[in-house]
Amino acid sequence: MNYFVSIHMDKNSKKPMYKQLGDHLYELIEKNILKPNTQLPPIRSFATHLKINPSTVVRAYNYLENRGVVYSQMGSGTYVAPLPLDILQKPIVSKLKSTSFPTSIPITDSTINFASMSPSTDLFPIDAFKKALNEVLDRDKGNAFSYQDTQGYLPLRKTICNFIQQSNIYTTPEKVQIISGAQQGIDLISKALLHYGDLVFIEKPTYNGAVAAFQSRGAKMIEIPLEKDGIDHNTLEIYLKLYQPKFIYMMTYYQNPTGISYSTEKKRILLDLAEQYDFYIIEDDYLSDLYFSLEPPIPLKAFDHKNRVIYIKSFSKNFMPGLRLGFMILPKAIFQHVLSAKQTTDIATSGLLQRAFERYLSLHLWEEHVKKIRAIYKIRYEYLIEQIEHNIKNWIDYIPPKGGLSLWLQLKSDIPMDTFCNTLLQRKVIIAPGSLFSLSPYYKSYFRLSFANITKEEIYDGIIIMKETLQHLENNPHQYLPFL
Amino acid sequence: MNYFVSIHMDKNSKKPMYKQLGDHLYELIEKNILKPNTQLPPIRSFATHLKINPSTVVRAYNYLENRGVVYSQMGSGTYVAPLPLDILQKPIVSKLKSTSFPTSIPITDSTINFASMSPSTDLFPIDAFKKALNEVLDRDKGNAFSYQDTQGYLPLRKTICNFIQQSNIYTTPEKVQIISGAQQGIDLISKALLHYGDLVFIEKPTYNGAVAAFQSRGAKMIEIPLEKDGIDHNTLEIYLKLYQPKFIYMMTYYQNPTGISYSTEKKRILLDLAEQYDFYIIEDDYLSDLYFSLEPPIPLKAFDHKNRVIYIKSFSKNFMPGLRLGFMILPKAIFQHVLSAKQTTDIATSGLLQRAFERYLSLHLWEEHVKKIRAIYKIRYEYLIEQIEHNIKNWIDYIPPKGGLSLWLQLKSDIPMDTFCNTLLQRKVIIAPGSLFSLSPYYKSYFRLSFANITKEEIYDGIIIMKETLQHLENNPHQYLPFL
Repeated sequence: MNYFVSIHMDKNSKKPMYKQLGDHLYELIEKNILKPNTQLPPIRSFATHLKINPSTVVRAYNYLENRGVVYSQMGSGTYVAPLPLDILQKPIVSKLKSTSFPTSIPITDSTINFASMSPSTDLFPIDAFKKALNEVLDRDKGNAFSYQDTQGYLPLRKTICNFIQQSNIYTTPEKVQIISGAQQGIDLISKALLHYGDLVFIEKPTYNGAVAAFQSRGAKMIEIPLEKDGIDHNTLEIYLKLYQPKFIYMMTYYQNPTGISYSTEKKRILLDLAEQYDFYIIEDDYLSDLYFSLEPPIPLKAFDHKNRVIYIKSFSKNFMPGLRLGFMILPKAIFQHVLSAKQTTDIATSGLLQRAFERYLSLHLWEEHVKKIRAIYKIRYEYLIEQIEHNIKNWIDYIPPKGGLSLWLQLKSDIPMDTFCNTLLQRKVIIAPGSLFSLSPYYKSYFRLSFANITKEEIYDGIIIMKETLQHLENNPHQYLPFL
Repeated sequence: MNYFVSIHMDKNSKKPMYKQLGDHLYELIEKNILKPNTQLPPIRSFATHLKINPSTVVRAYNYLENRGVVYSQMGSGTYVAPLPLDILQKPIVSKLKSTSFPTSIPITDSTINFASMSPSTDLFPIDAFKKALNEVLDRDKGNAFSYQDTQGYLPLRKTICNFIQQSNIYTTPEKVQIISGAQQGIDLISKALLHYGDLVFIEKPTYNGAVAAFQSRGAKMIEIPLEKDGIDHNTLEIYLKLYQPKFIYMMTYYQNPTGISYSTEKKRILLDLAEQYDFYIIEDDYLSDLYFSLEPPIPLKAFDHKNRVIYIKSFSKNFMPGLRLGFMILPKAIFQHVLSAKQTTDIATSGLLQRAFERYLSLHLWEEHVKKIRAIYKIRYEYLIEQIEHNIKNWIDYIPPKGGLSLWLQLKSDIPMDTFCNTLLQRKVIIAPGSLFSLSPYYKSYFRLSFANITKEEIYDGIIIMKETLQHLENNPHQYLPFL
């Protein structure tokens, strides 16, 4: 009750008592003095303490609950809501922004942005896609804009079945669900499978957009550490013996943020564990097309003979994020639930975009496109590594991911990540600190460098600035060691 | 425990015991013998009864929970899940379809479809929209396909603020949230505001897509009856004294399915009640543009000086459903929560479609379009009423809605609605029975006739077939009275 001592009610105020109390509590929650999932005081004792009527406390709690700030559990009291005021208070992107870009430093054309994973817009195949769009409009006319089948435009689902054979996945249109981007896929699975309090296993570290979707369904999460070739399956099994997750969420290739890819052995172990302990695996294939080695990656789904894998394929990073299009391949047992979730979420994905993408895919323009951008990103990747090796090797550790759009580096120095990020920012270089990718403080010495949207010149300048910053901070430890 | 007597475990089967038990239970749930929210037997006594290990029961419950068929409440047991096996087992559209179109009667070109609310595709302004799309592609190039601001493309939000002034709503771009259709708006509000077990008030009868979205967040619903000029506010206030809803969901004009519009007095009373009892109002404006009287409707939002109304505007019925675009105007207190919900749902709505629609709106092409279709639908509406008055007046009661895309009729006869629907279906006429729009059986003598996607000739033929069907059924009561 310590926090509540400061609350005083003004009986002469024009503001109703319940609003006074509600606003006081709101302030405590907003300032994070009252932490998520903290129980609010029991109504009667709180009323006695404040010398007010218990019904005023009830109204104040309802007032807060109507604003989504607290939630009540039948018979057990009222609690601070974990969602809007925790990770979700600001949208994830702006959370990333707010960490990386204090308002005093506006992003300008001269900013070197190693934080953004959005691909360069000048690589988008606008002309080819425009052609596909116009073909569809001329062919289908009004039908392109009528209500679309919730599962997705059938010719697109058929085309996808052919397309995905190149990844050794053999499926049928009945198992394919079209989605408005991978984030929607993650959200639909959450909607279909998760109830309040359910357990989800996630990789540590992982993509915070997925974490936010699971949290928004009230799921609890357990982080399983990653090793060089995939998840630490020994730790995973220890947790599986203790808890039953609804599913585990993972990225099998060029994992975000670590860049790790799963070995064939790890994939086999995972599928065996899924069968043995009866859980699903969400495989988020957001980037496997951007491989820089000779052999194309083979998704976990290709080995999934027991229907344990929910496969999500995104076309954001490898095509155009603004298209908002992707697909899932679903185990039969959950298909109907996901379809219902899609129906109540947005009825269907835009029929026009589905039709245009079907044209684009079936003309094999996507393969051409991805081949082209793979070559371009490979050059950037190799140049970035070259510059790192040449300039800042002594300060950092990393494993080359051999694909994807980013590197994951550990700073081997006493320099705090905050100081490093902020000092870089003064020189208009933006990086993504490791703390953005995990619920635990474990990754505070890590950072992610993305080469998705950056030129060769910017890579050169950016790494030189990093070198100079590291040298400067090492020579001036008083800038980050407050007691020296 | 009666239902469980039939369960026998086969210890010699190759199928693991927990799967045997799980599959038995699944069957009972699927057959609706075990109803939604029924508690499953406590683990220990069930294990004793079945002469198996308690851990097998635990695994069987987990196995079912992983399939979304049951849910567990911390400390209180395991329950049959209400969602997938209740209203959500089949998506809403196919539920409507399955009621209206038994598989034995395929829909052909000769079907007269009074059930569909999808507007005629030949009324879609394809050429003008195609022009807007191409202008945007030429102007914005790759930027049209990069990640879009989660709140929506700013120029579109600005254009919407100008546009919506025609409905007497004055707002600013900060309060506008772009959505992928009204269904997504309803779903985002649910995600932002509802917790498991929360209460929502709905109109009786109402749109089942909204009901499904609220149910999917675990909300409980209370239906408030409609009167001729809006909700029955006396009943509403009785419930407000007993319960605190998170919000009430309503359609203020040409309500689906009743066609009712709210009087100014009802609007005022509602806003007063919202302030007094501290709840939000979701105003789903899906159709107010299709008015057939002289004066354009004024949405509730226009009177909302106390920020109680969450306004959702759809462009599905009055423009093109396949575009999947709409917007909301939000009270400041919930804005951030809704933005977070949008972020975790699909990051953003397609930037390309937002940009094209912005062009289309700001060139005032939408006003032109809606004026045109308003005239066309008005002719259909008047013709439908003329045919009803001329042919089937003696059997039915209705209030002309003076706008919208459908009529709501009561059958004043002993003929059961099922018999009426099915007999019409034999003659390829499809109508929507009232039972689709309410959780209670109250509306079983009602049906909805939509003129959204039907020609003058079809209206003529369809009403004549209704007349003949009614005459035939009245003269042959043995066809529907089993004991005569």
